Amino acid sequence: MSAEIEDIIKRFQNYPNVVGIIIVDLFAIPIKTTMDYNLTVHYATLVSNLLSKASKMVHSLDMTNELTSLRLRTSKHEVVIVPEENFFIIVVQNPSE
Amino acid sequence: MSAEIEDIIKRFQNYPNVVGIIIVDLFAIPIKTTMDYNLTVHYATLVSNLLSKASKMVHSLDMTNELTSLRLRTSKHEVVIVPEENFFIIVVQNPSE
Repeated sequence: MSAEIEDIIKRFQNYPNVVGIIIVDLFAIPIKTTMDYNLTVHYATLVSNLLSKASKMVHSLDMTNELTSLRLRTSKHEVVIVPEENFFIIVVQNPSE
Repeated sequence: MSAEIEDIIKRFQNYPNVVGIIIVDLFAIPIKTTMDYNLTVHYATLVSNLLSKASKMVHSLDMTNELTSLRLRTSKHEVVIVPEENFFIIVVQNPSE
């Protein structure tokens, strides 16, 4: 899995305005991060909860449907969350001007 | 408030691929909808919960930050959620090809 993780980090680092990338396993434990560790653990826990709620919402509306990404736009950042089979990816970006 | 609501509905109806627009008050009660009523109530309840969790997440990470929109991309649709002061807006779109 680690080669796959390295590729993901490299891929998202090439996106513009990226300020952080976190890879989290399905138990909300960070596997890899480019951010401060305390902030990483905080994001991992909160996003894990939000992602499971969003996935349940999608299935509750239509069992055959799947959540493919979740994007939070805030006044300071954009947080993109991508669920994969064994982990999920959090990308924190400064909103493009 | 109703003139404001009508304007919002008109504005989002001009977006491409929009299949439904729902306006929900802060008690998760639908104010206006272009969708089937049962589906509307289902969306309103689920999104209300998800939105409050997402807002709490943003404030927990940074009290001075604000959630401005939430976007769920699924295999079938894109659901955009926009919190306003007294209500929130749900726009369901077919993903642009």
